[in-house]
Amino acid sequence: MNVFEDLESEVRSYCRSWPVVFDRAVGSRLYDEDGREYLDFFAGAGALNYGHNNPVLKQAVIDYMMRDGITHALDMHTVAKREFFQTLQDVVLAPRDLDYKVMLPGPAGANAVEAALKLARKITGRESVINFTNAFHGMTLGALSVTGNSMKRGGAGIPLVHATPMPYDNYLDGQVPDFLWFEKLLADSGSGLNEPAAVIVETVQGEGGINVARLEWLRGLAELCKRHGMLLIVDDVQMGCGRTGPFFSFEGAGFTPDIVCLSKSIGGYGLPLALTLLRPDLDVWEPGEHNGTFRGINPSFVAARTALTTYWSDRELEEATLAKGEHVAARLEKLVVEFPASGLTAKGRGLARGLQFPDGDTANKVCRAAFDRGLLMETSGPQGEVAKIMPALTITEDELDGGLDILADAVRTVS
Amino acid sequence: MNVFEDLESEVRSYCRSWPVVFDRAVGSRLYDEDGREYLDFFAGAGALNYGHNNPVLKQAVIDYMMRDGITHALDMHTVAKREFFQTLQDVVLAPRDLDYKVMLPGPAGANAVEAALKLARKITGRESVINFTNAFHGMTLGALSVTGNSMKRGGAGIPLVHATPMPYDNYLDGQVPDFLWFEKLLADSGSGLNEPAAVIVETVQGEGGINVARLEWLRGLAELCKRHGMLLIVDDVQMGCGRTGPFFSFEGAGFTPDIVCLSKSIGGYGLPLALTLLRPDLDVWEPGEHNGTFRGINPSFVAARTALTTYWSDRELEEATLAKGEHVAARLEKLVVEFPASGLTAKGRGLARGLQFPDGDTANKVCRAAFDRGLLMETSGPQGEVAKIMPALTITEDELDGGLDILADAVRTVS
Amino acid sequence: MNVFEDLESEVRSYCRSWPVVFDRAVGSRLYDEDGREYLDFFAGAGALNYGHNNPVLKQAVIDYMMRDGITHALDMHTVAKREFFQTLQDVVLAPRDLDYKVMLPGPAGANAVEAALKLARKITGRESVINFTNAFHGMTLGALSVTGNSMKRGGAGIPLVHATPMPYDNYLDGQVPDFLWFEKLLADSGSGLNEPAAVIVETVQGEGGINVARLEWLRGLAELCKRHGMLLIVDDVQMGCGRTGPFFSFEGAGFTPDIVCLSKSIGGYGLPLALTLLRPDLDVWEPGEHNGTFRGINPSFVAARTALTTYWSDRELEEATLAKGEHVAARLEKLVVEFPASGLTAKGRGLARGLQFPDGDTANKVCRAAFDRGLLMETSGPQGEVAKIMPALTITEDELDGGLDILADAVRTVS
Amino acid sequence: MNVFEDLESEVRSYCRSWPVVFDRAVGSRLYDEDGREYLDFFAGAGALNYGHNNPVLKQAVIDYMMRDGITHALDMHTVAKREFFQTLQDVVLAPRDLDYKVMLPGPAGANAVEAALKLARKITGRESVINFTNAFHGMTLGALSVTGNSMKRGGAGIPLVHATPMPYDNYLDGQVPDFLWFEKLLADSGSGLNEPAAVIVETVQGEGGINVARLEWLRGLAELCKRHGMLLIVDDVQMGCGRTGPFFSFEGAGFTPDIVCLSKSIGGYGLPLALTLLRPDLDVWEPGEHNGTFRGINPSFVAARTALTTYWSDRELEEATLAKGEHVAARLEKLVVEFPASGLTAKGRGLARGLQFPDGDTANKVCRAAFDRGLLMETSGPQGEVAKIMPALTITEDELDGGLDILADAVRTVS
Repeated sequence: MNVFEDLESEVRSYCRSWPVVFDRAVGSRLYDEDGREYLDFFAGAGALNYGHNNPVLKQAVIDYMMRDGITHALDMHTVAKREFFQTLQDVVLAPRDLDYKVMLPGPAGANAVEAALKLARKITGRESVINFTNAFHGMTLGALSVTGNSMKRGGAGIPLVHATPMPYDNYLDGQVPDFLWFEKLLADSGSGLNEPAAVIVETVQGEGGINVARLEWLRGLAELCKRHGMLLIVDDVQMGCGRTGPFFSFEGAGFTPDIVCLSKSIGGYGLPLALTLLRPDLDVWEPGEHNGTFRGINPSFVAARTALTTYWSDRELEEATLAKGEHVAARLEKLVVEFPASGLTAKGRGLARGLQFPDGDTANKVCRAAFDRGLLMETSGPQGEVAKIMPALTITEDELDGGLDILADAVRTVS
Repeated sequence: MNVFEDLESEVRSYCRSWPVVFDRAVGSRLYDEDGREYLDFFAGAGALNYGHNNPVLKQAVIDYMMRDGITHALDMHTVAKREFFQTLQDVVLAPRDLDYKVMLPGPAGANAVEAALKLARKITGRESVINFTNAFHGMTLGALSVTGNSMKRGGAGIPLVHATPMPYDNYLDGQVPDFLWFEKLLADSGSGLNEPAAVIVETVQGEGGINVARLEWLRGLAELCKRHGMLLIVDDVQMGCGRTGPFFSFEGAGFTPDIVCLSKSIGGYGLPLALTLLRPDLDVWEPGEHNGTFRGINPSFVAARTALTTYWSDRELEEATLAKGEHVAARLEKLVVEFPASGLTAKGRGLARGLQFPDGDTANKVCRAAFDRGLLMETSGPQGEVAKIMPALTITEDELDGGLDILADAVRTVS
Repeated sequence: MNVFEDLESEVRSYCRSWPVVFDRAVGSRLYDEDGREYLDFFAGAGALNYGHNNPVLKQAVIDYMMRDGITHALDMHTVAKREFFQTLQDVVLAPRDLDYKVMLPGPAGANAVEAALKLARKITGRESVINFTNAFHGMTLGALSVTGNSMKRGGAGIPLVHATPMPYDNYLDGQVPDFLWFEKLLADSGSGLNEPAAVIVETVQGEGGINVARLEWLRGLAELCKRHGMLLIVDDVQMGCGRTGPFFSFEGAGFTPDIVCLSKSIGGYGLPLALTLLRPDLDVWEPGEHNGTFRGINPSFVAARTALTTYWSDRELEEATLAKGEHVAARLEKLVVEFPASGLTAKGRGLARGLQFPDGDTANKVCRAAFDRGLLMETSGPQGEVAKIMPALTITEDELDGGLDILADAVRTVS
Repeated sequence: MNVFEDLESEVRSYCRSWPVVFDRAVGSRLYDEDGREYLDFFAGAGALNYGHNNPVLKQAVIDYMMRDGITHALDMHTVAKREFFQTLQDVVLAPRDLDYKVMLPGPAGANAVEAALKLARKITGRESVINFTNAFHGMTLGALSVTGNSMKRGGAGIPLVHATPMPYDNYLDGQVPDFLWFEKLLADSGSGLNEPAAVIVETVQGEGGINVARLEWLRGLAELCKRHGMLLIVDDVQMGCGRTGPFFSFEGAGFTPDIVCLSKSIGGYGLPLALTLLRPDLDVWEPGEHNGTFRGINPSFVAARTALTTYWSDRELEEATLAKGEHVAARLEKLVVEFPASGLTAKGRGLARGLQFPDGDTANKVCRAAFDRGLLMETSGPQGEVAKIMPALTITEDELDGGLDILADAVRTVS
């Protein structure tokens, strides 16, 4: 009996692309139950920036468990929570001159988004939110309503209203000045646009196809928000925690978001954790107005704190990520040049990279061929036309090159 | 510097009732950073049915981590997932003649509810859902829309539509025949009720004030659903996993829900896990139509599987829970009799018990007095008028009596 | 060629029940193009309380037209509007001690309802509205959302949200104390009911099946509204203008609605006119915040004013209506007694009367038989099970008896 | 006592611009109660295309009333309805090769729009509708949701969802290719746009500021609709019935709308009438699924029919309108040239003309100065920055020039 096919809902998906049963994993290597090894260019969809079962984090978690450190505590205060908060403040926020309150919105990125949207609406008294074409923010109803994918939206079973999509950077291929349409809608009292409470944006759209917004576009967006009294929410769930180089993906862009959503790699070890960061003056929540059972997952705090002290006390990881990212970019460009007839495009920033194919079918074949050669890569984009290169930030240069070799081989085979 | 006050959002709540910093916990005991001990009648709001850091589960999780068992795997297939699924089938579903597909909807109970509502709407093509007065189903937008509490609903910042409340069992104090109003609305094509896709119900309302639905009321509800083509969703997030005695709280009621939501204690160890169980013929999901990063939390699978084999291979825990529940009931009734002027009411089923006070202020004072005496209890109900007695199912009889002694003392003090 | 079948949309309905082509009409008599005469127990669904082409009103309108009195004037001030307003004040409002501002919301009853709902939401800042089972308030989206009929609601093509139905008087056959459920929902902060801006009610439900609310129930409703800060909107579109005896159907009930909707017979002559009356302190509209092209239909003002001075300067019409209503009631009761096996019920107040059959099919056959005998009656109620007796208030006693004779004959034939 | 100020709601607006009491009106002349004469460049906001109390129409209506032709008949068949339908078919639809079913949706333009939107949603099973910036479609909730003006939208008191605005022709000043954004949203399954049931458009936006869509833009829109399975609804309430020259404003554009909304001047005499025209295969209404009391206003049918036979049996009116329109355009252009520093823009098509000022304040002063000189003009546009020149189509050339002289004088005075 195959318990998966018999018992697991048809909604399952990753297991369809990689039809093996994984057992163990260390760093950038996974092993299936037959002992076969796989190189990981997927990294838990961004949840494993420090690799699988990172030994430093593992030791911290096991030590905590061994001494019966409290595991589940909702939003009770705990020693582990204090240490994590203090470290977040000392290692991440203070050095970047960021003044945020921290909210534990629930275990996952969608919870961070739900809380951000609630708060923005509560503060402004407006219902409408602006999202961007090909955005992905999660599957719960609030988060789904600002997500672009029509198949996933259709799953809601009710009309998803209250969000209006605007063109993401370069969506109209440079034919239209930035924010021309958006600003006109806001400025014109007859435009029919409901006044937005907030704008929610990813600095790089991961699920949307590794679409990179230019920093000046982001800065322009922040200025637009300020001019029109809209809160700017940066969903850094996938691109934060160093994925694009710096800890926050918006660093260096010359603006500070009003609200930031973090999850995925903030927990460090692949255990659930999510944070909503808010400008202190926006912290108008009533006690308990938003709550949930899985907010104080203390092993996640322990791993998170250890990750911050280990990887973010200096700029080593950031610089390595940028260097590796440049290396990937260069090799992807080589592929683009090598296969001029294939219509490839290299995309990305930091270690969020993509190779775009003319259609989803080709991208899929390439990822399948890569899998057959022992490399895990997933596709993204509206048609699944972009193969994602999202390795752990801790991947070695050899592993990185090994994976890129496989990718090149897979492209060659499919072309 | 107090990092909590400076850094944590005002939305925090439990830490306000219990203003200490917890550090360790074992079984039904918690310890704050000063080493003070607390007895636990709260059990992680139902997430810790097997106690804090249950040694059997702990060992299993640590063993898994030590051997670098994969931690984070989305819905990839893993050995840990297979073993959990197989055990769920063998130990829980098959012996109860339950034929369900299993869906991993995300890490928390709200995700299980969101997925259930989506699916019910997709299947029926209807948008409307029936919920009950004083229901609690979660804080994400879909789950919140079927939750009763007006303060929490207000946090949404948008009108929560698509749900219509019906009176929970005994809501109108026995003055109205069961389902008179509900059935009339359904039968009358001029009633103005939008045809519901589903009914979502808790068999015992935990957050709503430990309100217990009679089994015949639940059975009547199931029949009503069948007659009118509405799917019946049982939210067993808090009352499942043995809280009321049997594994599912609806066992013995003579009906089978179409969809069941599980979370909280299903993971066993206080680590996030959630399941949506569905009748196989309802499994009309497209692959990936509902997804999320934190669905395959393998340490949770390991703990969950170990909990099932340890506690549900025989009927020992169920019987012990029922016996302890009766014991609590008897002692609460004694309190009711002892303080006739105080207007107390004893409520509950299994180890989901409540002592209802005439108002929230009194209940709060009693819980505060209990805390001062080293006992953790929270209030529930629309005014917070019900003190909840929800210990770990594994609490010893001595601990249980110790806690009840403290409770009695607290009632005496406040009265 | 039959231009109707070829050209008119399938949505047409009355012409299906009465498949003739009408040409002329005077008082309570209609004539088809072949000269056949029909007695009118329908009165334009309540729009013709003073009969067809009432000669006094006709003369006033023609005189106005002959002297080129302005016809179309939006909400510009006109002599005809001033005279109508002054007469409304002197003849209707002042003598009843009613202090209302008058709004011209558009040409029809649905406009009066749309404006009332908008205003109630604007004033309270709440979105939700309470309507009643089997309510009918109109076909535009706002009015439809508070209408009960499921076929008509389905026509919206979008989920109609923001309204929650409550049981109309006697809906649950006296098994439940008045407002038990409604008041509990309002009083319980955990009930899940969104706080309502307003309650909209018909004192007698015409389309809903001539359901009569007792005056004490209406008074109880008004008190409930006051206690909970909800505005009370009485939709007197069909039951106002003397249909139940007094000018307003709520006179004598011991309460004053916050907002009153009038249309149908307010124009007197069957020409469109609608009014929304509001308590002066509720008049928070911005100039032009609600507007529309057909608000100042001056021939309607002229007819309306003439109707008020002719019929409402004394109590003659009111008393005659009550007497005729009693007469109809007595004759209907005779029918009930005469056909004990037929399960008839006599219903109504004033000259809004109904004879309820066990099912719509029988009621339909009776109305068809009546039509064959030269009497126009329509059915109402969720299944069309109620034959409506709604003659012009100016019908003669002979005509009334003639019609009732036909009805009795039709019942006999069908039984 | 001033009955208007004391009794009429603050929502009144036109009477604030023209603070006199009108009494009589003939053709393009109105007279106030003091006998002062006003020239009409307003024409009942488009409801009086044939002038006030047009003598031919007046005679027909009075004759009908004198012979007791039935006045109010809902959707019963009448001789007057048949004659109107037959004439509409013979004079308007057949000669233009238009194959439409005719629906009586209620008395006013908003009803025609509400019915069109309902039908489009019913047919497609989709909820979303595309409207355009600065659109105006009416004040009932469905019509208001596709209207642009934020003040009027705010009056709804609930979030107006289900509509997404697109840029009207030339909204972005020619910087963006037509439909670039709209088509990209439709083609991209990840755009986040809910699939639209329909597009609703005015060929010239009257309330929006006399914005004229080019015929090729309209044709492009029609093609876009066809490609993406969206129904195209043309709201010809203000621009139909000859306002732009031809009977329908879209004649000659090379496409046929799926649904057309007519009202205002279709009744001819300023009495309410509205029509929704639908492609025969779209006529999927259930009998009575949309209804209403004021649909069969027979005096309106009589006037409407007379207007069609009088003015549309040949092309005389159409040609005269075009010629007069050109004349107005030329004189407006002269004003633009005469006052180069004033930033004037002349706009319009046919006899729907506008003179745009840099701001609403100036436009308002000009209209006020015109009124002081005996000319009625209103402003439109989001800031009220466009003075509308919308005389009766039957205005004489002398009257037209007289009004334009006053306008020129008013501009001179204000400049």
